[in-house]
Amino acid sequence: MRRDDSGRNVCIGVVGLGFRGLPQLDVLLGMPDVEIAAVCDIYEDRVKMAQDHVEKARGKRPMGTLDYRELNACREIEAVVIMTGWTSHTAIAIDAMRKGKIVGMEVGGSASLEECWELVRTSETTGMPVMLLENCCYNREEMTLLNMIKKGVFGEIVHCQGGYQHDLRDEIGEGDKNRHYRQNQFLHRNGELYPTHELGPIAMYLNLNRGNRMVTLVSMASKAIGQHAWLQRHRPDSDLAQAVFRQGDVVTTMIRCANGETIVLTHDCTLPRPYSRGGRIQGLKGIWQEDNRSIYLEDRTPSDPSYWTHRWESDAPYMEEYLHPLWKEYVRDGLRGGHGGMDYLVLRAFLESIQQGKEFPIDVYDAASWMAITCLSEQSIAMGSMPVAIPDFTCGRFCCRKKREKDRYSLDDVYDDVFAQ
Amino acid sequence: MRRDDSGRNVCIGVVGLGFRGLPQLDVLLGMPDVEIAAVCDIYEDRVKMAQDHVEKARGKRPMGTLDYRELNACREIEAVVIMTGWTSHTAIAIDAMRKGKIVGMEVGGSASLEECWELVRTSETTGMPVMLLENCCYNREEMTLLNMIKKGVFGEIVHCQGGYQHDLRDEIGEGDKNRHYRQNQFLHRNGELYPTHELGPIAMYLNLNRGNRMVTLVSMASKAIGQHAWLQRHRPDSDLAQAVFRQGDVVTTMIRCANGETIVLTHDCTLPRPYSRGGRIQGLKGIWQEDNRSIYLEDRTPSDPSYWTHRWESDAPYMEEYLHPLWKEYVRDGLRGGHGGMDYLVLRAFLESIQQGKEFPIDVYDAASWMAITCLSEQSIAMGSMPVAIPDFTCGRFCCRKKREKDRYSLDDVYDDVFAQ
Repeated sequence: MRRDDSGRNVCIGVVGLGFRGLPQLDVLLGMPDVEIAAVCDIYEDRVKMAQDHVEKARGKRPMGTLDYRELNACREIEAVVIMTGWTSHTAIAIDAMRKGKIVGMEVGGSASLEECWELVRTSETTGMPVMLLENCCYNREEMTLLNMIKKGVFGEIVHCQGGYQHDLRDEIGEGDKNRHYRQNQFLHRNGELYPTHELGPIAMYLNLNRGNRMVTLVSMASKAIGQHAWLQRHRPDSDLAQAVFRQGDVVTTMIRCANGETIVLTHDCTLPRPYSRGGRIQGLKGIWQEDNRSIYLEDRTPSDPSYWTHRWESDAPYMEEYLHPLWKEYVRDGLRGGHGGMDYLVLRAFLESIQQGKEFPIDVYDAASWMAITCLSEQSIAMGSMPVAIPDFTCGRFCCRKKREKDRYSLDDVYDDVFAQ
Repeated sequence: MRRDDSGRNVCIGVVGLGFRGLPQLDVLLGMPDVEIAAVCDIYEDRVKMAQDHVEKARGKRPMGTLDYRELNACREIEAVVIMTGWTSHTAIAIDAMRKGKIVGMEVGGSASLEECWELVRTSETTGMPVMLLENCCYNREEMTLLNMIKKGVFGEIVHCQGGYQHDLRDEIGEGDKNRHYRQNQFLHRNGELYPTHELGPIAMYLNLNRGNRMVTLVSMASKAIGQHAWLQRHRPDSDLAQAVFRQGDVVTTMIRCANGETIVLTHDCTLPRPYSRGGRIQGLKGIWQEDNRSIYLEDRTPSDPSYWTHRWESDAPYMEEYLHPLWKEYVRDGLRGGHGGMDYLVLRAFLESIQQGKEFPIDVYDAASWMAITCLSEQSIAMGSMPVAIPDFTCGRFCCRKKREKDRYSLDDVYDDVFAQ
């Protein structure tokens, strides 16, 4: 990566201008050190809208194109940010790297191991780095939990859980919008379609790809009746109401790590429920759970000595006490961007890493291994919940890969001393 | 079974007089229609203590023996209640049936499929019925949830979760008490050791062995470090502090049912945590979760139409509205026995079924299939989380086995009309 040049402009091309791309383009336009040189989408109306938008904000109309290869070929672009539908991220990223571009990729699962390997190999051979823009790694709660874990509050970690549990029946059921990136996946696939929002933070808790790694997984899917029932009730006249959805309503995935920890993921998007990433962290000294916003710490939570009388306490005081220093600063300076502020932070991590020539906090090995969970879980389910090996995309180097440089955006450790007090 | 003769005396022999047996013996002695003719344990002091106890309560000293075969051979005994350590239940039950006794068995997992089959075959060939005394099936919350499910509140059920999540490090770590039934299991086994407290109620929710059944399971175990760390800290001088415990701290098991539902079980006994059976029920119309004591029902929970704004509500009003009629009556008449009253109810279900000549609400097929989860989960883990087939102990009859007779203790349906209003 280039040498440290904090604050310098980074010239960016944006591919994908839909529900995710447009709001993130806005976040980028809010950053004075970002220049948007080109925008791309397969729909012309979106490209025009984005061009108008950038021109209005910056006084200069960016290039617009329907062909990402054209955008990737732009001389002045240093980094390409990919926010298209799930199945096109890798192909666009590989083309961009081959054309000498740094890559920021939105999240999504992979449909084959081959594309994960190609992503890794292309980054290694071209020397161009890739960052997976997993916003939840920069969410307030997850960063604060990371801080607690790295400070030893939970002791050695043994088990983590998480989920993408989000009632999307309304969104998936929009029968007439053929531009939707999710609907076809639910019609034709059956697996842990969207693992990274919960797995990303867990990967940081467990030092995955830095002295630990995911070794094997098994997935199981429930029957798929939720989306169909919703359509029968709410859109009985749409063609989609007759369709057979293959994606199980609840898909559970168990993962075992090299150092013996287990991870359980839940994908749950087609039944009625409140949103939850279903977090749970268990270590030698205590447990935290998202759904009751509670914690139990053996040496701190008030408790009778009898094991029948352990009681949860609210996690609120701990969330305050251990607030991650990046978030302390962020709250003080004012939150920006969507999803509670994390969308802004993940893009800043991307941009400032580029400016300072530092390794990305979520690198190509993280991206490949997290994305691979999707296709591997599909394979496991297709074979009746057979265990499936998770490749080591570092080819053995995970054993002794060092932590990244000290940085405010680091996720493998928390460096209090890099923040102004 | 014998003909209806409500209120008549049932003459019982009790085998196993430890931490479970003694308190349950007390509950039995509180019932005027129960006679205790004999007691048995492998420890003489326990037998004497129980004999004294019965004599004091009833004025008549029961037979005492160290040999269950002697107890099972007692002419006057109609039913044997087995409350020994996990690994001896089946052998004692089989001997009892062969001697013409009805059997009530405390819960615990099986160590082999063979013993499950033998239990079933012996019951079938001798004609003697077996009831698994799973108290949690008669717990207030579980019965009330059963009532909600059978009244359609959650719609068609898709996914259930449960767990035996109980910090037992103190109990397992009692190095000098060689009479402990759990310690050796944690030293030498690795699996879902204790599935029935959560699986029993779920089996009722999902009509298992009555039109549905468990078809396959996969288990995964985390590393086993919790018990050792606890001993190193609290009993560093005990021999046990040097022992290697094989039981993973967190063991997760996924089960798929014939009708497409999934079940996830968690065994979690050697890390610090509050007690929880980790219940979760998901259907087409809503979700319930134990840890936040919350519910979301699509058509009832106040909610914005946007899927981002679904909010949990407390389950308390629903627990009141749908309180199971058996519990309504029980609360009115006064709770008795341990564990919040369920210990009493499960014994009443056993005794009244015998008096009235009705099928047991938890029969030998339920017992065998629930207990089998333990050895199957061990096999799955031993083979690297391979999927394992769960036998159909009904040999195909589960498809069209009918619901049991209307009864106040029924668990496959809820009969409001058998209760006085």
